[in-house]
Amino acid sequence: MHIHIINPNTTKALSALDLAAAQAVAAPGTTITVSEPAQGVPSIECSFDEAIGAIGVLAEIARLKDQPIDAFVIACFGDTGLAAAREAAGVPVIGMTEAALMAAALVAQNFSIVTLPARTRVHAHRVVANLGLGLAGRCLPIRAVDLPVLHGHTEEATVIDTLTAEARRAIDLDGAEAIILGCAGIGHHAAPMQASLNVPVIDGVATAVGMAEMLVRCHLSTARGGSFARPLIKPIDAEFAHLMPKENPC
Amino acid sequence: MHIHIINPNTTKALSALDLAAAQAVAAPGTTITVSEPAQGVPSIECSFDEAIGAIGVLAEIARLKDQPIDAFVIACFGDTGLAAAREAAGVPVIGMTEAALMAAALVAQNFSIVTLPARTRVHAHRVVANLGLGLAGRCLPIRAVDLPVLHGHTEEATVIDTLTAEARRAIDLDGAEAIILGCAGIGHHAAPMQASLNVPVIDGVATAVGMAEMLVRCHLSTARGGSFARPLIKPIDAEFAHLMPKENPC
Amino acid sequence: MHIHIINPNTTKALSALDLAAAQAVAAPGTTITVSEPAQGVPSIECSFDEAIGAIGVLAEIARLKDQPIDAFVIACFGDTGLAAAREAAGVPVIGMTEAALMAAALVAQNFSIVTLPARTRVHAHRVVANLGLGLAGRCLPIRAVDLPVLHGHTEEATVIDTLTAEARRAIDLDGAEAIILGCAGIGHHAAPMQASLNVPVIDGVATAVGMAEMLVRCHLSTARGGSFARPLIKPIDAEFAHLMPKENPC
Amino acid sequence: MHIHIINPNTTKALSALDLAAAQAVAAPGTTITVSEPAQGVPSIECSFDEAIGAIGVLAEIARLKDQPIDAFVIACFGDTGLAAAREAAGVPVIGMTEAALMAAALVAQNFSIVTLPARTRVHAHRVVANLGLGLAGRCLPIRAVDLPVLHGHTEEATVIDTLTAEARRAIDLDGAEAIILGCAGIGHHAAPMQASLNVPVIDGVATAVGMAEMLVRCHLSTARGGSFARPLIKPIDAEFAHLMPKENPC
Amino acid sequence: MHIHIINPNTTKALSALDLAAAQAVAAPGTTITVSEPAQGVPSIECSFDEAIGAIGVLAEIARLKDQPIDAFVIACFGDTGLAAAREAAGVPVIGMTEAALMAAALVAQNFSIVTLPARTRVHAHRVVANLGLGLAGRCLPIRAVDLPVLHGHTEEATVIDTLTAEARRAIDLDGAEAIILGCAGIGHHAAPMQASLNVPVIDGVATAVGMAEMLVRCHLSTARGGSFARPLIKPIDAEFAHLMPKENPC
Amino acid sequence: MHIHIINPNTTKALSALDLAAAQAVAAPGTTITVSEPAQGVPSIECSFDEAIGAIGVLAEIARLKDQPIDAFVIACFGDTGLAAAREAAGVPVIGMTEAALMAAALVAQNFSIVTLPARTRVHAHRVVANLGLGLAGRCLPIRAVDLPVLHGHTEEATVIDTLTAEARRAIDLDGAEAIILGCAGIGHHAAPMQASLNVPVIDGVATAVGMAEMLVRCHLSTARGGSFARPLIKPIDAEFAHLMPKENPC
Repeated sequence: MHIHIINPNTTKALSALDLAAAQAVAAPGTTITVSEPAQGVPSIECSFDEAIGAIGVLAEIARLKDQPIDAFVIACFGDTGLAAAREAAGVPVIGMTEAALMAAALVAQNFSIVTLPARTRVHAHRVVANLGLGLAGRCLPIRAVDLPVLHGHTEEATVIDTLTAEARRAIDLDGAEAIILGCAGIGHHAAPMQASLNVPVIDGVATAVGMAEMLVRCHLSTARGGSFARPLIKPIDAEFAHLMPKENPC
Repeated sequence: MHIHIINPNTTKALSALDLAAAQAVAAPGTTITVSEPAQGVPSIECSFDEAIGAIGVLAEIARLKDQPIDAFVIACFGDTGLAAAREAAGVPVIGMTEAALMAAALVAQNFSIVTLPARTRVHAHRVVANLGLGLAGRCLPIRAVDLPVLHGHTEEATVIDTLTAEARRAIDLDGAEAIILGCAGIGHHAAPMQASLNVPVIDGVATAVGMAEMLVRCHLSTARGGSFARPLIKPIDAEFAHLMPKENPC
Repeated sequence: MHIHIINPNTTKALSALDLAAAQAVAAPGTTITVSEPAQGVPSIECSFDEAIGAIGVLAEIARLKDQPIDAFVIACFGDTGLAAAREAAGVPVIGMTEAALMAAALVAQNFSIVTLPARTRVHAHRVVANLGLGLAGRCLPIRAVDLPVLHGHTEEATVIDTLTAEARRAIDLDGAEAIILGCAGIGHHAAPMQASLNVPVIDGVATAVGMAEMLVRCHLSTARGGSFARPLIKPIDAEFAHLMPKENPC
Repeated sequence: MHIHIINPNTTKALSALDLAAAQAVAAPGTTITVSEPAQGVPSIECSFDEAIGAIGVLAEIARLKDQPIDAFVIACFGDTGLAAAREAAGVPVIGMTEAALMAAALVAQNFSIVTLPARTRVHAHRVVANLGLGLAGRCLPIRAVDLPVLHGHTEEATVIDTLTAEARRAIDLDGAEAIILGCAGIGHHAAPMQASLNVPVIDGVATAVGMAEMLVRCHLSTARGGSFARPLIKPIDAEFAHLMPKENPC
Repeated sequence: MHIHIINPNTTKALSALDLAAAQAVAAPGTTITVSEPAQGVPSIECSFDEAIGAIGVLAEIARLKDQPIDAFVIACFGDTGLAAAREAAGVPVIGMTEAALMAAALVAQNFSIVTLPARTRVHAHRVVANLGLGLAGRCLPIRAVDLPVLHGHTEEATVIDTLTAEARRAIDLDGAEAIILGCAGIGHHAAPMQASLNVPVIDGVATAVGMAEMLVRCHLSTARGGSFARPLIKPIDAEFAHLMPKENPC
Repeated sequence: MHIHIINPNTTKALSALDLAAAQAVAAPGTTITVSEPAQGVPSIECSFDEAIGAIGVLAEIARLKDQPIDAFVIACFGDTGLAAAREAAGVPVIGMTEAALMAAALVAQNFSIVTLPARTRVHAHRVVANLGLGLAGRCLPIRAVDLPVLHGHTEEATVIDTLTAEARRAIDLDGAEAIILGCAGIGHHAAPMQASLNVPVIDGVATAVGMAEMLVRCHLSTARGGSFARPLIKPIDAEFAHLMPKENPC
């Protein structure tokens, strides 16, 4: 099986982290590759960035259209461009956020997300709301330490302490039984945080790889009748022509 | 007051319809202008199209950054790129979908959306869910006649009959007390449909213009502390450099 | 256009505040008038008061039945008697609470209401719940400073400080990105509070005037098929005979 | 124990039906009395009527302030004036709608309301929503046969057949496991309908009497700290002076 | 009328408390009996315990199948085995949790549960969610003092102080207007706590007895068409054969 | 990796189906075993059956306590005894219902469950509600063909046609984009139904195996701080002594 991870940020160091996280959990026989868009923003931290990142995700899917890929994983919290990617790709696409939320719901009744920039909580909220996990009382209020995304790996020593302290507040004050790390750039802190906090600490990239394997082995792929049907065939201007999916060109 | 309407589709005929709808309801002293992106898709009918349209909306906001515009209206059902546009623009941005939903809630307890392509119901649902109008039992199930967006003005004679029949079903079967037309390209059918159906029939572009005037006169603009703060300052690649907002360049 | 504001409280000083707030935002060509019931309570601060105020609202609508009014605004937080007023009036009726909530949703992802008496939070909650803005995670917990309604204008100097401090808590502790002032008597504090807090601060009366203008210009009025149909024709006892609407006498 | 039923409609025949329904289920030692307002409308069928009926409910509570009453029941679907009555009365007040809904939830997973005028569904919905029974998936869509309230007892022979047919649709099409009769004037049809439909058929007045007995025996009464605190002491105009509660005059 | 209380815990001291609570509120002519399973766990404090307790509840219903019982009450917070008991018993079955929640909703807009072990909050949440009282904003976050269930009666002096302090926090910090005691073993503290806190304090066993009387007098019993139909007739192994209901043996 | 499937029904033919479904999708190196309780009911079709089945699930977990099992899967729609099993087992436990729902949410915006006995819809609803997928508008109304559970494999020829017709109604009338088969005994119909319906058709057992592999590879197991902490240490009567978990004996 071949799972390809798309890092919607242009920072290659994040791609490297994604690859390491994925390879650590991939099943025997699963190949992991990763890429990031050639053009975009170094880190996605607002809706403006997400709009750019979504084009990058589509560009990568189009660029890889002849590769024998079995599933894509989108490695940015908020699941940048997920719905469009599901339409464009011929194989399943998994967002790291939805995967992390589902994994959390399988091991805990109540859980929290701890993310980096405070303003990105609205992106996490969007995924939580689309699943209903907030209304069901499962996903508790989203917490943030309000640091830039790239600090997740450039300032590792201090970030892990800050994240751990915030996770501790989620556990003690909100009643969280598990913690989701709300950024691809901090997923590598999951293992040490799980050890120190003694609760499940969940990295979305790793869980998304497992979800992708599950779908592929179960012969399940994106439903084509309705919301995620292939993009409609229509004229497209030059600037966006490179985004055209393979099977059903727009 | 100067309100600029962005038509995220590249079809100029839609822009013309938007302009007419807006001018018909603008208050004395309000100037209306309209534009569409130079590059994009002729009609937005899926999430893939929306990703492209969002870039177009941002491109228009950037292109117009030196114009004395008081508010923007996004004239595509689903409110293409709205969150990013709120961050990028220095003035309020109103989506036609949210405006139509609010107007409906001011005149009816229960109301329905009737849209064109069935698959775009997921875009309308996203806006409804973000306001909570479905959970509150106000917005009834979204209906579609499953015709292409551009038929709204190119096949007017048949489209209005089809829409009217579907609206009648919403009224009779679902209990709708008002109807929202779920596409910018059919807003000009609102008046005749209101006359024939004898219930309020709502065009999002017209109501969005009124909402924009309301915000501007009340000296209200997008909140800058949190979800819709200006985009963060960071390097941006050449392909997207033209999207940079004016006041707080990325 | 002629918009008439009904102040359901009998305190004329509140009517004067409503008039000033409305005139400050009305579009060119819009005439604003205001009145309060001849009989009632000086300030509406509980459900018992609301029951009395609702009769006052209906009495004003009946008294003004021959006036060329285009829309009514109800100027009391909680939107006293709104559903009955919609049935009774031949033109649109806008509640200041629903208008403020919609304006907030157009400029912020998350917002709070700060009101005066703590016990009136249940009235605000009723309007929030009817729109779904709480379930959608948009409207945060309602806050109150627990002062009498009339202190809003009789004790201005201290009230504005108290309100500002409570709004600050909503911003800092709850994550509010905008603030709604939950009482007609404190709407005139919106501008200075917006200046000092640096977030949108919303007055319901002003926004309701804008909403009324929007509906009238869009040729939208209360849906008559269903929940807000005109009152049924039936015998009515002497005590309430003066409430009879014009077009469809009970 | 003395339970007093307030029929918010002025039709004495409805009061007689309420009395009979209550006496049939009252515990040994419980005295039932009933009254209707001296002024009002013969039947409450819209929000305009409800505003008038709420004053009637308060008038009755005030008129009876020296009687040794242990609890009040409000006998009109929609629970006319319930919140105000809770503030005004010194003893528990139970609405027939909330009581019926709770009884239904104790005997069935899913249940429906069948009411008379279609437009009154919004009143039932308000009570359902305030309890959350719709969001929880327990209370199914509200059905109506769209007949006037007074037909419930004046046209008994046909009404019971029409109600039974509609209830059958709720059972067969919606999956209702129990039926609530959504009007005080049709409660006496519950027993024969239960016999013919073979599902629980619930009359709100009867169940409200049982709820009132339960609260009184458990020494529970309306919470006074917060939403239902006694009305505030304030000047009240002559028209409404007779509504003043006993213990804490306004 | 004969109401039988099933204490799903095997601790006889809890049964004695249940009996006393019930007898104190039973109507004239109501006989109360109580029993606990012969086999089980002394106190139900987790889902593992609940699974065992549910068998105990079914065993008691089967053992008592020839007794002239009119209704059962399940006296353990979380309503152990309630759905299965409804199927198995030929008469209504009331859970103490659902009864307490309904009583609270009749006397207060907002209310809280204060329970003993923190981990049992998930059981209370299950009942709250099944009614929708959390989504409706009525039932506030569940609080716990995190003491063992049996401390409720063995360490009375300290437990009541601890519970009272926690209830005070629910009132002061969360806005609770009434308190539900979330364990059968602390119901006898309701009266003194109500006296000291000056808000309604609700014991589920007492309110469930009242609810049972209400259903029986109203001739309402468990709906048999659907979710709570009698158990299907099928072979059952020896270990569970004693659970067979009377009327419709499995 | 060793995944053990517990079939809570005592019918060995169902265990065989579970084993086949699991082995077909297991990753290289994953061993699958399956067992059913020694005592119980042949098929779980109501809450009474579920109570018995839950004991069977706990009995199997206890019986296997010295086996090197990495995760358990519960193979009965409704996820019999899941919460108790999570407490009792030292490794992750996955319910087939939650797994199927999550898989559906990864490939479709809207999806339906089609189950066998109509009355078991309440069990499926419980799992849907606990995740929030109904409130979020993702999981559509649950459909049933109302046949006994065991017909799923004993009457294969007719059952698959009946299920397919019902799934078709879910697609055409409700807008389902994917179908979940709501019973372990019909999972083997997923592949042919997917081929004939041309939408994703999901078997919970297969997807649960994939979820179990995902959790194990990601080093995630049941959160022990809170709702799913190990059962409390306490005396347990002889009838249930065999259920004692290994690590933390009750």
